[in-house]
This record gives sequence, structure tokens and C-alpha cells, in this order.
Amino acid sequence: GRVAIIGAGHVGSTTAYALMLRALFREIVLIDNDAGLARAEARDVSDANALARPAHVWAGDYPDAARADIVIITAGAATQGAQSRLSIATRSAEIVRQCVTRLMAEGFSGIMIIAANPVDLMTAVAIAASGLEPARVIGTGTLLDSLRLQHALAHRLGVAPNAVHAMVIGEHGDSAVAAFSNVRIGGLPLSRFQPDWSVADEAQIATDVRNGAYRIIEGKGYTSFGVATAIVRICEAVVRNEGAILPASTQLNGESGISGICLSLPCILGASGIVRILEPDLDEAEICALHASAAIVRKALASLTA
Amino acid sequence: GRVAIIGAGHVGSTTAYALMLRALFREIVLIDNDAGLARAEARDVSDANALARPAHVWAGDYPDAARADIVIITAGAATQGAQSRLSIATRSAEIVRQCVTRLMAEGFSGIMIIAANPVDLMTAVAIAASGLEPARVIGTGTLLDSLRLQHALAHRLGVAPNAVHAMVIGEHGDSAVAAFSNVRIGGLPLSRFQPDWSVADEAQIATDVRNGAYRIIEGKGYTSFGVATAIVRICEAVVRNEGAILPASTQLNGESGISGICLSLPCILGASGIVRILEPDLDEAEICALHASAAIVRKALASLTA
Amino acid sequence: GRVAIIGAGHVGSTTAYALMLRALFREIVLIDNDAGLARAEARDVSDANALARPAHVWAGDYPDAARADIVIITAGAATQGAQSRLSIATRSAEIVRQCVTRLMAEGFSGIMIIAANPVDLMTAVAIAASGLEPARVIGTGTLLDSLRLQHALAHRLGVAPNAVHAMVIGEHGDSAVAAFSNVRIGGLPLSRFQPDWSVADEAQIATDVRNGAYRIIEGKGYTSFGVATAIVRICEAVVRNEGAILPASTQLNGESGISGICLSLPCILGASGIVRILEPDLDEAEICALHASAAIVRKALASLTA
Amino acid sequence: GRVAIIGAGHVGSTTAYALMLRALFREIVLIDNDAGLARAEARDVSDANALARPAHVWAGDYPDAARADIVIITAGAATQGAQSRLSIATRSAEIVRQCVTRLMAEGFSGIMIIAANPVDLMTAVAIAASGLEPARVIGTGTLLDSLRLQHALAHRLGVAPNAVHAMVIGEHGDSAVAAFSNVRIGGLPLSRFQPDWSVADEAQIATDVRNGAYRIIEGKGYTSFGVATAIVRICEAVVRNEGAILPASTQLNGESGISGICLSLPCILGASGIVRILEPDLDEAEICALHASAAIVRKALASLTA
Repeated sequence: GRVAIIGAGHVGSTTAYALMLRALFREIVLIDNDAGLARAEARDVSDANALARPAHVWAGDYPDAARADIVIITAGAATQGAQSRLSIATRSAEIVRQCVTRLMAEGFSGIMIIAANPVDLMTAVAIAASGLEPARVIGTGTLLDSLRLQHALAHRLGVAPNAVHAMVIGEHGDSAVAAFSNVRIGGLPLSRFQPDWSVADEAQIATDVRNGAYRIIEGKGYTSFGVATAIVRICEAVVRNEGAILPASTQLNGESGISGICLSLPCILGASGIVRILEPDLDEAEICALHASAAIVRKALASLTA
Repeated sequence: GRVAIIGAGHVGSTTAYALMLRALFREIVLIDNDAGLARAEARDVSDANALARPAHVWAGDYPDAARADIVIITAGAATQGAQSRLSIATRSAEIVRQCVTRLMAEGFSGIMIIAANPVDLMTAVAIAASGLEPARVIGTGTLLDSLRLQHALAHRLGVAPNAVHAMVIGEHGDSAVAAFSNVRIGGLPLSRFQPDWSVADEAQIATDVRNGAYRIIEGKGYTSFGVATAIVRICEAVVRNEGAILPASTQLNGESGISGICLSLPCILGASGIVRILEPDLDEAEICALHASAAIVRKALASLTA
Repeated sequence: GRVAIIGAGHVGSTTAYALMLRALFREIVLIDNDAGLARAEARDVSDANALARPAHVWAGDYPDAARADIVIITAGAATQGAQSRLSIATRSAEIVRQCVTRLMAEGFSGIMIIAANPVDLMTAVAIAASGLEPARVIGTGTLLDSLRLQHALAHRLGVAPNAVHAMVIGEHGDSAVAAFSNVRIGGLPLSRFQPDWSVADEAQIATDVRNGAYRIIEGKGYTSFGVATAIVRICEAVVRNEGAILPASTQLNGESGISGICLSLPCILGASGIVRILEPDLDEAEICALHASAAIVRKALASLTA
Repeated sequence: GRVAIIGAGHVGSTTAYALMLRALFREIVLIDNDAGLARAEARDVSDANALARPAHVWAGDYPDAARADIVIITAGAATQGAQSRLSIATRSAEIVRQCVTRLMAEGFSGIMIIAANPVDLMTAVAIAASGLEPARVIGTGTLLDSLRLQHALAHRLGVAPNAVHAMVIGEHGDSAVAAFSNVRIGGLPLSRFQPDWSVADEAQIATDVRNGAYRIIEGKGYTSFGVATAIVRICEAVVRNEGAILPASTQLNGESGISGICLSLPCILGASGIVRILEPDLDEAEICALHASAAIVRKALASLTA
């Protein structure tokens, strides 16, 4: 199969490298307005052929992307320091709209993964601009936040990340909701796994996770490896028609009482994209927080499309 | 690291092959009373070097095994057709005792994985015969049953196996308990994931899983790939000090109200073996069934050691 | 993609297991005249889902196989002990012809891999019975012998198998030719890598490799892991359109002066099967031996089709 | 096992990410003078836990590195644009000497991989500063150049990179020697694989490969994925005691007629580092070019240590 990555910056090129090492595609196309950058990254990533089953990586253009099974959009305006993801929305929306329009003009009919921020808005923009069935447009949403929550809990409790069921839902941003009532460690609720577990522990971990991206940006200026990991995980679920259940930003139509925006809830992912949206079993505070998160995204989307 | 496999029959040799493909060890020793068999299997398995990072596989002896990080005991009396696992206990116990005694005489101090059946009894036998700290002796127990339960639920519900949290606990045998009250699909209880889910569905899936091994034996005369998979999974958790949470047969000291026997409960597995035994949150019927399962194993162990 | 394996014996089921662990296909179909065996193996292999990206394995029939990208034919008459591969040719040819005919009747148009022995004859039989373009029918040929030669040289010289370039060509059988003049160790000829290397060393290694299968059969009654490894390697080269260069049994049309039979020479393998047959640079003795090998296969093929 | 990476810039952090995805180590320590950068990269890389067997990644210090099996030194002065690697030697040498001295002061006794440029000089500096047995200090040397040569030939000839035997030797820099007389495609010399192959083809490919790094730097400002790939390949060979044969920069003592400097020749790599240095079979022009390359490095080393 073929994947195309639009935007050859840190996220796009790191995603290409990780996809090479995972041998998930036979062909990887990198597209960037800066064609020299795309060529340099394609050349640098190609050297990973030495570690994996061979794949062909090249700097291409929209006609190449149109024939891909999956197109990943990482292009967008970058956040600067602790700048809010919403503040860069308008500029990003223009870029995403332009990419999607050019892609559709070439006849694309595959699955689209949106990693541009603010991702919940950009997923909505991509659905509108593409005219694709909404299930075929998958925003990375709170998947990365969820991986970080799992990792933070696993580290604290001394277990493997994959022994932790934990999800962050809602906006991929400051209003994200870590659904602690749903957390299970090897099948046990937190309070049963660790009897002295307290609400204060949850608050601290939630803060750590929420600030995760900001701290990384503070230290290195941007994030790359985590986002690339989340994108690769979605690609795997789609390419192999896994039926994996992962949080993803998707257009809601009444799920958990929310409509008209894109937001992350747990989704079943397969070859056709988002196969089903699940409604998690939340406590009252989490429901409140989820609706507050939805309100923030709704307002931002309204100003964006105003 | 080095792994040694005692018993080069279908389970032992298939485990060696899977360990090669997973590149988990640099050295794999096969030991069997039939030295010609061990040599033939080592030679056949060696050819997998062509697909993976190279490892050295050879037919060795107890001094080789004593220097291994992990020793896997697959030797034992084989079940014939639908014969009960308990009925072969006495013969298997002699074999396991002999293997363990020879191994300890060479100064072994690693982790022992017991895959010989009836596995709950053989794990107890191995702990007694070795004098090792009980946490360092891991029975494969209901891990394979649990993988089958996950797979059966995943297949029925159209999701990926790793989106299903489900465990079988208790005896690895006819009295095993599928803990449906604990099942989560992407974090949701069965009744919430699939509103028309019924007790009858659970009964049918439990029967399918319980009969799984018998059907395989009926069709091919023995089982190999599933058991090998379970053993490899335990090896990974130990070698990489994962903190994975998997059901395993281990000596219980009051956990879930059971003592004095080996039985499967969810365990945290790491470099030192069984790091912690978890007590799952069961409904009343499951507790009853678990204690009934424990009683069966206790009685069998008593006759074995009488 | 989908793979179908016809023949669910040791080779077929082990191949299915290895393909699962390598995550090469999303769907694996097992077909056997003994439907109970195919169901048992499919069930046993399915448990490997716990270690790899999920794949769907089932016992199916020819209509399922017809829609596969690759069909692997392992069905055939089994060699008994040190029995010559040619002696079982007539019985195997009937079986292969029947399988191929049923498959083509369902409209198969993918790639066929032949692992049934005597493989050079069975590849010819499959080409004739299928009417497929000969390049789409790949016999495992001397690939396994070549992996064993590489491994034997690597073991003797203390280097990694993939640092050894070495190929066995000709008949997959007693007349196979280990092309020592072509061997390179990290690019060096044997005599330069190891100055005291002698013709006697080559003779001994050639004998070891030639007797490899017989010794394995002597010890365990059949071979499985090595053959499965060779089949998986061919699958990878095809599925990923690698352009790998591997010895394979293929219909020769004058290459190295041989025509009208299937025999192993190094081939470039890609999505369309055998992309190109290479003519190795041999010394005089090797050319003689290769033509002698061809003569044996030609005679056997003539009696088979008489 | 544990690996430590000194220098958390693009190369160091990308190496950490690739090592995570390859599951080669259980513990990865990142060290940088900019502790905030090291913490940010460790956090970002940690998220890869979601795709692989879990590993622990953290920002640490020299005492953590001293207990590692392998220490990778990526710290050094960066090349700017098309600046010669030699021109940054003095500044890099100070940095490498300081890192090595601090590491040895903590009692390090593992394997050292040098990726800082100019790598042939830095390998010599690290050997001198560490007092380690020279075989335990491995410079990445022309490994990356060789991967690029293999890839360029593979791409041109339509075969898989691992079907191409090709090595660049000598200085990792402008005087590197692509040893075309040694190239084999599936065992065949270039002129036999492709009868119309010409010296002009070789010249063009050699130029492409030599300029590879400059073009990448021109496009993206630095190289990362290719170097990381080369480092990971060396780590694999050491950790798994492979006996792989790879070009690496190592202290020569008369091999190919060169002494007193570090330069790349094909080496057998295993658990103890460089097990043996091979002397490739070169044509006269290649021998000349290799000695010219050695002279350049010797002169630069002399000015560095003057």
C-alpha cells in the first residue's frame, strides 16, 4: 500500500521514519510547499531501508497522494511556546483547506488522518472541505494524551503501559478530560489496585499529562516522536483492518449528547476508518467536563467558520 | 540472554521457533531425553535465522540450561484425546521433578516457566522440587484460555483482540472460570458495548473456550502454536521487565481467599518473575466457581503428594 | 492481503504460524482434505493473535483461496525417512494437479508458491496445470538449502548468516550444487577471508547441507520450521515487491544453458513473481554439476509426464 | 540492557526513538548539557512505548551512563551547510574528550559508539581519552555512506537493497572510496548483472552518494534519520553478538597497509566490539584512493593533536 504525508516538518518526517521501521507501507510520499525540504527528508528517511523490509520513499505531489490508501495531513501553523492551540486556528484552517482541496481535485478516495492543530477544528475543516464520508476522516485528537495518561499511570504504579486502560477524551487541548472513573489496571479500578489512591493523585497526573506537550515544546521547541507514534498507531489500525479501539477526533452526531463538532471519544478503527463511536461510561464530573470541552470547541469552530 | 527449553516435542520446538522469530534471546538450548530429536529440532529451528536477527540454537544438556536466564519446562506426559489433564498428573509429576532436580543440581538460579500439564499441579511440584522462591516459578495456567476468550469475544464483537480485556482464572482445566463480570471492550462492560448481550452468549463463549484445546487435539492430535504463543508472551514480560499483567499459575497465600495450591490469578510479571498477585473483582457466582476450581486442584494435589 | 495455504500438515500450519508472527497478511486461509485438521490448525494458529497485529485465520475452501494474493501449495506425498524425493513424484503430481485445477476453476490469478516435493517437478506440474504465466509460479527449490549453506558457513567462520553470500542451485535434491566459487564473506572470497580454507572444508560443508533434511527427518520424522521460513521469505519478497534476489525453482528457457525444466537459479522476486532469472558466474566443475543436476530433473520429468 | 546517548540533539533523540521502536534495550538514558532539552526529548520519545515492548527512557547523567552496555556519543560541533567535516574538528575534539573523560571517571567498561564528526578523528580521540581497548570503540565511519551506496545501486538496478553488496571505505568525508570492484548484485559483479554498466555510471553514483549528506543538510539543515539508522544497526550487531560485517571506523594497525589512524574498513562486529578488521580485495585505483584518504585523515589528526 501507499501512504502520503502532507507536511514534511518534524512531525511529517518523523512519521515517515517510524512507518519505515514498522514496514507498514511499500510506498511513502512526502509533500511540502518547500520541495527542497521534502526531498531532503525523503532522502534521509530512505536510509532506514537498511533496518527494515524495503520501502520506496520520495518527495512527490498531489497526484501521487491521490492514489494513496491513507493521506496524513501534518501541515498547519505551528504553536509557539505555550501559545494556545486555538489561537493558530485560522491560519491552520486555510492551509488544511487548501491541502484537502488540492487532494480531492486529484480524485482521492482513501482515508484521511488529520494531525494539524487545533486538531478538532482541523478535522471538521477537512471533512467539510473534502466532502468525504465523515468516518473516513480521523483526527489524532486525544490519542497522544491517552498514551501519555497510560504511560504516566503505568510509571507511577509499576506496571506495563499496555496493562493500563485509560483514555483522555474531549478536546485535544486545555479542556481535555482524563476519564479516571474508567481507568482499569489489569482489569481493576484504581482504588482497588492501589487502596491508598486518592483524588489528589488523579489531579496531579491529569496536570502532568495536560502539560506534557507544553513541557516538551519548552524543552525542544516542538513535539515530534509522540505525535508520530499516535499517527502510526492509527495507520496500523486502518491498514490491517484491526478493529482497534482508540480515542480519535471524529464528527459527533449525538454521541454522549454532543453534536455538530469533531471531538475525541473512543472509536473502533478499521479499513473504512471510524467504524463506530463508543459512548464511555463516565461519572457526573466527567460528563460535565466533557460538555464544557465540547462548548469550547463549538465556540471556536463557530468563530472559525464565521 | 539465554533460554533453555526442556522437552523438544511439538510445544518445545514450536516455542523455540517463535522465540527465534521474535529475536528475544541470543541463545536457545533444546534438551530432550531423545537427544536425536533435540538435535533435529535445533537444526530445523536454526533455519529461522534467515528471517530474524541471528540466534544460536543447539541441542544441549542440563549444564547449559543452568546458565540460562529462563528455563521452560514443556516435558511431561501427553494428554490423549479428550483425556482429563488431571489423569496424567502422576506420570508428569515424576518427569517434572526429575527435570527440576537435575537443573537445580547444576546451580540454576533464573526464572522457571512451567508448561507441562496439569499445569497447576506441575507448578506446585516444580516449586517444591526446586526450592526456588515461588515467585520465580511461573505456570502458563489460564493464559492461553484467556487469549482464547479475548479472541472469541473480539471475533464475535468485531473488534481487535487487544481491545478486549478478558481473563480466565482458576484451574487450567475443566473448572476454569471465565470472569465475564470483568470483561471490558474498549473500557465498556459487555452489556453497555452490546445492549442485547445475554447470559446465554456468555455461556456459549465460555463453552467454546473451555472446549478449545479438546477440539484442537481432536483435529490434530495435540496443541502447539497456542501454547507456544503463551510461553513467548511470558518470556517477553520477564526478559524485558515489562510489568505486564497476565493470568499465570502461581502459589497462592490467601489471595482471593485461596492458599496452599497453585492456581491462576492475574499477576504482574517482571524480571524477578511474579511481582504481585492481583485479586480480581468478581461477582458472587464467579467467586463460587473460583473456589470450586481451587477445591478440585487442592484434592488433586493432595492425591499427587500422598 | 490474503494468503491461502493448501495442505494443513506440519509445513502448512507452521507457515501459517510464522506468517502470523510476521504480520504479513490480514487473512490466512488453511485448506486440507481433512477439514477437521484444517479447522484445528486454524484455531491453534489463531492464538498467535496475542503476539502480533491481528489477522483472521480460518479453515476455508477453494473459492476462498481463489481470491488470495498468494496461494502456497504444501500438499503432496510425504517423503519417508531417507527416501528419495523423486520416488514420490507420481503421487505428489496427482495431488498438486488436482489442487491447481480446482484453484484455477475458481478463477485464481495471483502468485503461486510450490513447496510440495519433489519441488522442481511439482513446479513444472503446477505451471502446466494452471496455465499461469510461468513467472507467477515460484518453487521453493534450493532456497532452504541456500539458507542452510549460509548458516553452516556463518557458524564455521564466526560471522552472521547475513554476512555470508552463498547459494545452492540446481535440483532441490541429491544433485544440488553448492556454488562455492561464488561465496563471499563480507565481500571476500573464502580463500581470502580464511587463508587456510580448503576444498576439503567445502566438501564437508556441502555434505552437511545436503544431508541436512535427511538428518532432521531421521530425528523428528519430517521437516517444518526451515521450509516454513523459506516460504515466508518468498512471501515477503512478493508482498512487498522487494526485488529480493533468492534462489527459486522456475521454468528455464536457456538460462545457464538449460531449457524445458524447472530448476533453481538466483531470481529477482517482486510483486509479479519472478522478475528476472540471473545466470551465476560458476567455475567449470560447478557448470558440469549444474548440467548433471538438470539432466536428472529432465529425466524424472519425462517419466512423470510419460 | 541499557544504552546511554550523550547528546540529545536531532541525531541523539532520533536514535533513541529508533531504538525504542526496535525494542533493543530496556533502558535508554539521554544526556545533554542542556538538561531541559534532554528531559523534553526523553518525554517525547517515551510516548513510543505505545508501539513497542515497553522501555524506560529518561534524562540522566554520567553515573547512569557508566552502567550502560553501550554509550553512543553524538555530541560534537555541528557542520554548517557545506562546511567540511574536518573544519569543525578542534571544537568537536574538546567536547568528545570531555564526555569520554567524565564517562570513564564513573567507571565505564562497555562499548562506545562514536557518531560525532569528523568521525574518524573523533574515534581516535575517544580511544586515546578513554584508555579503552581500541576494539571497544566503534566509529560510525562510512556505514551510512555504504547504506546510501547500496540504496543508490538497488534503486538504479531495480533490486532490494539487501541484494546489493557494496561498501564505502576510508574517510567518512570527501575522500571516501566507493569500492565498486567489490560490488555484487545477488552475487554477480556489476558488469555481469548489467552488461552495459559503465565507469560513467559508477562515477555518477559515487558523486550522488558523496554529496548525499550535503544535499540533506541543504534541504533540512542537518541529517538525522540516516545516521540514527546506522547507529541502531551497530547497536544490534553488538547487543546480539551477531558477527555482522559492516564498515566501521576503527584503529588500524597495518590493515590494508594503513597504521596509526582510525578509518573505515569492513569489520566483524560482536559483543566485544570490533572482533576482526577485514582487508577488502581492491583494484589498483581503489588502493590508491584509500591511501590518499588515509593521508588526509593522518594529516588532520596530526594538526588536531599538535
